Amino acid sequence: MAGTDRSQSSLAGGPPLILCRPQLGENVGAAARAMLNCGLTELRLVAPRDGWPNERARAAAAGADAVLEGARLFATLGDAVADLTHLFAATARPRDHAAPVIIPRAAGLELRALVARGARPGLLVGPEREGLTNEELGLADTVVTARLNPAFSSLNLAQAVLLLGYEWLEAGEQPPAPADEAAPKAELVAFLARLEAELDACARDAGAVQHSEVDPTLRGLFQRARPTSRELRTLHGVVSNLLRRRS
Amino acid sequence: MAGTDRSQSSLAGGPPLILCRPQLGENVGAAARAMLNCGLTELRLVAPRDGWPNERARAAAAGADAVLEGARLFATLGDAVADLTHLFAATARPRDHAAPVIIPRAAGLELRALVARGARPGLLVGPEREGLTNEELGLADTVVTARLNPAFSSLNLAQAVLLLGYEWLEAGEQPPAPADEAAPKAELVAFLARLEAELDACARDAGAVQHSEVDPTLRGLFQRARPTSRELRTLHGVVSNLLRRRS
Repeated sequence: MAGTDRSQSSLAGGPPLILCRPQLGENVGAAARAMLNCGLTELRLVAPRDGWPNERARAAAAGADAVLEGARLFATLGDAVADLTHLFAATARPRDHAAPVIIPRAAGLELRALVARGARPGLLVGPEREGLTNEELGLADTVVTARLNPAFSSLNLAQAVLLLGYEWLEAGEQPPAPADEAAPKAELVAFLARLEAELDACARDAGAVQHSEVDPTLRGLFQRARPTSRELRTLHGVVSNLLRRRS
Repeated sequence: MAGTDRSQSSLAGGPPLILCRPQLGENVGAAARAMLNCGLTELRLVAPRDGWPNERARAAAAGADAVLEGARLFATLGDAVADLTHLFAATARPRDHAAPVIIPRAAGLELRALVARGARPGLLVGPEREGLTNEELGLADTVVTARLNPAFSSLNLAQAVLLLGYEWLEAGEQPPAPADEAAPKAELVAFLARLEAELDACARDAGAVQHSEVDPTLRGLFQRARPTSRELRTLHGVVSNLLRRRS
């Protein structure tokens, strides 16, 4: 399974991937292959157990040699992430830590947003079996945990790398957002409040005594659509125009 | 990386996965592990090259033994898919075939829809390197192709299985749809036409000579929100109420 319609722009600017204390060379190689599948090319290795360079890694990389050859070796995780502004750590079942926990899909979107702002985020994957220590996890700003079969949730190292890389790539292919960002919530609240006030006045004119609320269904609709500031201005204009209509 | 918040309902009813002429036992085992990570348990094997059962498969399954033990062996792909109503085939670069080509995310949603309707879909993954033959691909109703790095798009067998299983699972965790389905397009078109007519009348009342169109931005907003029939009725009510307001 592979693809051809991936746009070049979504391949550029991928974050570095840090493998912390990986054990098997095969897994490092398979991770490099998964990285390159997703257009990630910057590999950083923290104290790989079986030494570096590693022949088994090369065999498992299945052609992703350039990623392995460009890999940089670090003694500690702290050294490996020194230049990064934001660290996303993939973990097994979330432990008791302060960082927010998100799914890979959300991580892909956040990574895109950070890179677009000129930030320098990185992806961290811990060693097979034991995972990251609490101290290592303490360097993470965000924890990434996939929603999997809770009875069998342990992913192979390269599989975890693939999910992170895949969601990074997919996040670069989102349907274009509306011309500008969703308006601040305050603007939406203000529009709904105005609509409610106008409908209330209409109901009073018609002789109703009861307060007329904007149907909660309608609030749901507008929440879902996440209107932009421009769209809210247009909606205000529509309400004004309808109100001006001579009876 | 693993998860705990996967709901039981999204794990049930997973489609069978058919591995057609797989070569390495390791890959069959790794595929079984990826399947179970995603709650898929029904494995069908068509003519595995290295024989069956296979010790290397068991070692690579990392505990997904139940999937391997339950695997069913078939001589031909036709036999393996005889009871299925819809076949999704993962392929490398799409070739010249009649079946529609979709990405894994869309496949996950289509699989959910088919299972919900009581259909019996299956997932097909071909052998390492050579892939499915044209004859085998001819049995597929839909081709699934991930958007990857076009310069290095060949996924390991188990990685392809993971992406399919992962998107099946994610599709079971979509945010709940509005109480009912999106209204037929005709209802949305009718609402926008009415809004345009009313705004036009307002503009004429105000002395304008120009035809007043509903702002295209606003059309985009409503298209995006995909209103339900109930929401459209509420919107009609809002317009009627605003028009009734005494000046």
